[in-house]
Amino acid sequence: MAAIRVAACQLNPAVGDLEANVRAILAALARAEEAGCDLAVFGELAITGYPPEDLLLKGGFVADNLAALEQVASATRHCAAVVGFVEAAQHLHNAAAICVGGSVVGVTRKVLLPNYSVFDEQRYFAPGAAPGPLYIVAGVRVGVSICEDAWSPTGPLMAQAAGGAELLANLSASPFAAGRLATREQMLSSRAAAASCPLAYVNQVGGQDELVFDGGSMILDAAGGVMARLDQWVEDVMVIDVEAPPRPGATLPQVVVSEHPRAHARLGPPPPRHVPPGPEEEIYQALVLGTRDYVRKNGFTGAVIGLSGGVDSSLVAAIATEALGPDYVHGVAMPSRYSSEGSLTDAAAVAGSLGIELRTVPIEPAHSTMSAMLAPVLGGPPIGLTEENLQSRIRGVILMALSNALGWIVLTTGNKSELATGYSTLYGDSAGGFAVIKDVPKTLVYALCRHINAIKGHEVIPEAVLFKAPSAELRPGQRDDDSLPAYEVLDPLLAAYVEADRTAVELVADGFDPALVERVTTLVDRAEYKRRQGPPGVRVSSKAFGKDRRVPITNRYGLRR
Amino acid sequence: MAAIRVAACQLNPAVGDLEANVRAILAALARAEEAGCDLAVFGELAITGYPPEDLLLKGGFVADNLAALEQVASATRHCAAVVGFVEAAQHLHNAAAICVGGSVVGVTRKVLLPNYSVFDEQRYFAPGAAPGPLYIVAGVRVGVSICEDAWSPTGPLMAQAAGGAELLANLSASPFAAGRLATREQMLSSRAAAASCPLAYVNQVGGQDELVFDGGSMILDAAGGVMARLDQWVEDVMVIDVEAPPRPGATLPQVVVSEHPRAHARLGPPPPRHVPPGPEEEIYQALVLGTRDYVRKNGFTGAVIGLSGGVDSSLVAAIATEALGPDYVHGVAMPSRYSSEGSLTDAAAVAGSLGIELRTVPIEPAHSTMSAMLAPVLGGPPIGLTEENLQSRIRGVILMALSNALGWIVLTTGNKSELATGYSTLYGDSAGGFAVIKDVPKTLVYALCRHINAIKGHEVIPEAVLFKAPSAELRPGQRDDDSLPAYEVLDPLLAAYVEADRTAVELVADGFDPALVERVTTLVDRAEYKRRQGPPGVRVSSKAFGKDRRVPITNRYGLRR
Repeated sequence: MAAIRVAACQLNPAVGDLEANVRAILAALARAEEAGCDLAVFGELAITGYPPEDLLLKGGFVADNLAALEQVASATRHCAAVVGFVEAAQHLHNAAAICVGGSVVGVTRKVLLPNYSVFDEQRYFAPGAAPGPLYIVAGVRVGVSICEDAWSPTGPLMAQAAGGAELLANLSASPFAAGRLATREQMLSSRAAAASCPLAYVNQVGGQDELVFDGGSMILDAAGGVMARLDQWVEDVMVIDVEAPPRPGATLPQVVVSEHPRAHARLGPPPPRHVPPGPEEEIYQALVLGTRDYVRKNGFTGAVIGLSGGVDSSLVAAIATEALGPDYVHGVAMPSRYSSEGSLTDAAAVAGSLGIELRTVPIEPAHSTMSAMLAPVLGGPPIGLTEENLQSRIRGVILMALSNALGWIVLTTGNKSELATGYSTLYGDSAGGFAVIKDVPKTLVYALCRHINAIKGHEVIPEAVLFKAPSAELRPGQRDDDSLPAYEVLDPLLAAYVEADRTAVELVADGFDPALVERVTTLVDRAEYKRRQGPPGVRVSSKAFGKDRRVPITNRYGLRR
Repeated sequence: MAAIRVAACQLNPAVGDLEANVRAILAALARAEEAGCDLAVFGELAITGYPPEDLLLKGGFVADNLAALEQVASATRHCAAVVGFVEAAQHLHNAAAICVGGSVVGVTRKVLLPNYSVFDEQRYFAPGAAPGPLYIVAGVRVGVSICEDAWSPTGPLMAQAAGGAELLANLSASPFAAGRLATREQMLSSRAAAASCPLAYVNQVGGQDELVFDGGSMILDAAGGVMARLDQWVEDVMVIDVEAPPRPGATLPQVVVSEHPRAHARLGPPPPRHVPPGPEEEIYQALVLGTRDYVRKNGFTGAVIGLSGGVDSSLVAAIATEALGPDYVHGVAMPSRYSSEGSLTDAAAVAGSLGIELRTVPIEPAHSTMSAMLAPVLGGPPIGLTEENLQSRIRGVILMALSNALGWIVLTTGNKSELATGYSTLYGDSAGGFAVIKDVPKTLVYALCRHINAIKGHEVIPEAVLFKAPSAELRPGQRDDDSLPAYEVLDPLLAAYVEADRTAVELVADGFDPALVERVTTLVDRAEYKRRQGPPGVRVSSKAFGKDRRVPITNRYGLRR
């Protein structure tokens, strides 16, 4: 039976860094060539990184991407490379170039252009005409498709199989969301089985603003079984011999890339790798990689976090420490006249268990000075929400001064439940460069803390932190549940309203308490202006605030009159 | 010759406020009915307001929009109404309903769905099949099209004309940009002339987050001449008798709405109205309406502005005063140890000439207190940029305290040149709810100030303000041109980089100074994270930061290594 040696090249590109992306592609290609591969498969838009967004509107950028592709093509020898790039014809196309022997020998265009959720491909690209030619590589007919083209059971990937493909290669940039790896595997498995054709799926890895790509590339056999997989969250190249059963006469046009497999002894089966992780672990890893890549790709030398002794800032510190190493994470405690004693000791305990430094800046002098300054124009010192926000904003100013003076990025600590309800202070606790857990609801914050304690085998986040009642400590004896329902009640309602897009009327019909629905949906709608000014953060759910959920700020739907 | 009486109904909907939008439609329809009209034309998505963005993903919202359309349809009698709404078939469609005698008698779907610049229609809608039927209204064959369908010279509007239409009705939500009215008129004129067919063009008016719709609806005759127009910037209904020359046999399918015109004496020609304004006036009006609608539609009772005595905050105060009235605009002077004496007197002069109140909160106490608080963790008091930003952020905290305590929205005063280069302090002068002049380059700021002085006939913005060198006054003797090139040099370079999407290499080839190109493009790229956290503001250019220009924050293209 024909076998083709394939390299699955799972890389972490930086958007726009054509030079570095080409370097990484060439290094992987050299490994594939040396390993005697016939075919090296890279990710979607591997040249530019995904998604390049409006850089694509710069003609000069597209031209530079073409020059970068030429560099890759000219380095190819016996091993054919399939590389994602931007093709410039009458319109732009999200495309894959097939390169061998120093040149580009074929181009396949993406047909199905996602334009929903976090995707905006119809803003930039015109669709290709389905389903493209087959490429004869090592005598095997290879169908090349790009990401979404695999997702439709009647899409281009299946059309290539029906048209005679003996191996399917799919180049992807499929962002992580909780449970996505399993969904993806199920989809790919059913495609391969329905097509009776092996399938090499290569996904991008790495963080890009709000998106994190988990990698998790895999090779499936013609029965739909996973033959081999690459680890999630890391760059890696996997070389594998794929049996490609010959199929009767093909109906699609064909482009000859190479007639025969390169001479080599067959490789043994790939070592078993990577047990797909449980739900907390995959989210934890997504948060770690998303944070690491945002900080590093944007050139920061370290991160600073306001440590309140609460569960959110403790989790963010733990994630940042895993992402950057303890020497690059700096905690700051900023106690106020309303802080409990436990706050400081808990913050110190977290810093101690993580091995990060902790500085302390009490905010009382600024609190009393600014209250006195404001009294004449407010007709008395700030009270209520004004005073609460004042304290939070003083803390924001302190963190930003540290950021300015020392070059550290401020990591904010707000969770998705807070962002949803607006339970945060704009320019206060929401001030910073990256919002690590902005897509993590409070109930999941607790689960992640317990998970970290379990995998680390000790109380990274002290039980005291996990057991005390959540409080912003902006007035005496304040507790979150003074203003918000218990998170166990709130989070399912928020998921239904935000992620499942139910309306207030429908939520009541679903059985949620009417008064609660009215209160919570009003809070969510009114907080849109705050979210719009929040920093980006890692998307881990099926619908995150930010790039994903695009509602108007000026929005009078369901207005309470 | 057949004449049809048409009402052009130019309304200012609020996105999502189905109830209020229906009320306004019904009021306009009653006027049209009473005036003996045969046809009342409304704007694109008049039921929901444009653009409803991700509200469209809520099935309940779409259902409510259908119920709202039924309300409108059931109120129709003799006068047919053409109303923009969201049709829910297998997919959603941006559609126009033709209603008469209490029911919907036809639906035409938008064919060309813009998905560029500020438009994302392919995220939500599927295209209709061109070009829809003709509707016989008052015995006249009317072609109904939606916005973009008029813009292509080979699009659905022209296909309707070729298929026998005797009157073309286009429902639009076409946002303002400088010079847009003239472009639109030119386009419509050439369509009407090419089609030899009169054209009724109805545009939405009003502000919606970053967009402002200027209205400027117009009726063109079969020679392409403008017969009548509605003023820009206001809600209004215009009734006009349109000559619709009969044309030979139609090829498109036809739906009978009404066979004969309603009996009435012919109206005289419409009064001449609205001389399209000059470039400064139209931008000024756009800023005024965009600000007024953001503030009002979001329920604020007033606005507060930090008045520095500089040209930017003076302009913003003048716009806000025009938009809201002097009683609803509150100035705050926040002098520091580095403020010149002129700053305070200039701020007072501006407040005086606008008739707005001015409160004064010197920031010295907070400046010295927070410097002392930070000294231990910084190893000395804040200096340089850290100290500059500290002052700016203290001012941000003061303005936000006033906002919290008194319910006023903070209007920020940064201009487009500053936003582009990052010459602003995140959470400092950029803190606020609405960024009135975020899309106005500094050179245009001056031109607008002079324009306001000219139209008001006195020095609203004192000459002293216009003549002093721009300065942030965050250190002794500071001037903008210490850090930035002169704005006359900077603004054209920014326009080429930001609006024309030239790359750094191309800008040098265009003849810009290479060192300046490197410095400025680096500033622009690095400031993306700040812009992402800035408040929304009125778009007045062909490419505004925000909804329009969507570049990645993590962007290593053209990286200086």
